[in-house]
Amino acid sequence: MYTLYYSPGTASMVVHQALLEIGAPYQLVDIDFDAGAQRNPDYLKLNPQGKVPTLILDGQPRSESTALLMMLAERHPEAGLAPLPGSPERDVWLQWMVYLSNTLASAYRLWFYPKDLGAPEHSPAQREALQQKIHAVWDNLQAHLAAHGPYVVGKNLSAADLLLTMYMRWSRNMPRPATEWPALKHLADLVRARPSWSKLCELEDLSAW
Amino acid sequence: MYTLYYSPGTASMVVHQALLEIGAPYQLVDIDFDAGAQRNPDYLKLNPQGKVPTLILDGQPRSESTALLMMLAERHPEAGLAPLPGSPERDVWLQWMVYLSNTLASAYRLWFYPKDLGAPEHSPAQREALQQKIHAVWDNLQAHLAAHGPYVVGKNLSAADLLLTMYMRWSRNMPRPATEWPALKHLADLVRARPSWSKLCELEDLSAW
Repeated sequence: MYTLYYSPGTASMVVHQALLEIGAPYQLVDIDFDAGAQRNPDYLKLNPQGKVPTLILDGQPRSESTALLMMLAERHPEAGLAPLPGSPERDVWLQWMVYLSNTLASAYRLWFYPKDLGAPEHSPAQREALQQKIHAVWDNLQAHLAAHGPYVVGKNLSAADLLLTMYMRWSRNMPRPATEWPALKHLADLVRARPSWSKLCELEDLSAW
Repeated sequence: MYTLYYSPGTASMVVHQALLEIGAPYQLVDIDFDAGAQRNPDYLKLNPQGKVPTLILDGQPRSESTALLMMLAERHPEAGLAPLPGSPERDVWLQWMVYLSNTLASAYRLWFYPKDLGAPEHSPAQREALQQKIHAVWDNLQAHLAAHGPYVVGKNLSAADLLLTMYMRWSRNMPRPATEWPALKHLADLVRARPSWSKLCELEDLSAW
């Protein structure tokens, strides 16, 4: 039985979807950000940074969505969340998992939290620069998927596609959402057609996009 | 035989040190950033973003330092770059590898490349905010290492320590370098005492710190 500390639509949603894909039993604990539950001392013991997700694995609290996907993929090889070590797709998977985490996730963090850069709002130049950073990621992925897709590692779905689709969803209200890149939209359509996506939206009470 | 496209002292150095720890044969190709070699069309075919490192693995160009360390760790389990899957330290390793990559590496990127934020230089508030971001990482690591060290996964060295030491080195000219955090300094001392570190500094013609 896994326990996932989550908040609807945030970085925890990809871990939630992975649990649904695996079909493993789990329980959810909603961390109510509006009520400041992420700063509750009991939660900070599990996650000193006060972020979601936290996943309890073998009795230990673990964090970082990308790492949690790697941990779940190792525990459930039959779910196909990752190409197996030694397979030709394995390196491709590792490279894009890390890339999404360090390039896209970090740009989003700044986009959504201007205070991280010391000001209540972005300057227009900063806003433009951050948008360019995010667009460059979509450009890179478009080129990769057009040549080697439809999924990140080729013919088969993996956790990298779930991660990418979550990040794409976050762009839906941006001036130029990720779905304007055709290979990205195609990948998102494939992920959104999965029963795990419908179930995720239902359980987290999310709009379908 | 591995081929590593590198530039001295940059993010490629941790991959170089991992190759030295493994003891595998490799060749180096210096990408001369001052001469713009990273924008050479032949190099862009290997690494479309024009970054280092690129490592040729099974004939394919791969990138992202953190991912390359994971790929090498899987290929050379005897080198102990990563705790084995299923071991209690494995999840700790994955979590910190991802954390270093998405939190610390991305903050450094902005620290060293103000243009990424649309201006030739940081404003004082921005500079302060980025420093705080980096200090928060040292604080988190100090707490973790003091409780569970001396290495990132406990008693044994892993690639996470090599990665962390590289990032610590980059802070050496910052107002408050990482070595001011005692558990971090201790870890760096352990890594800097290894033959692979001396050899790395010699081969890349780097100052010892």
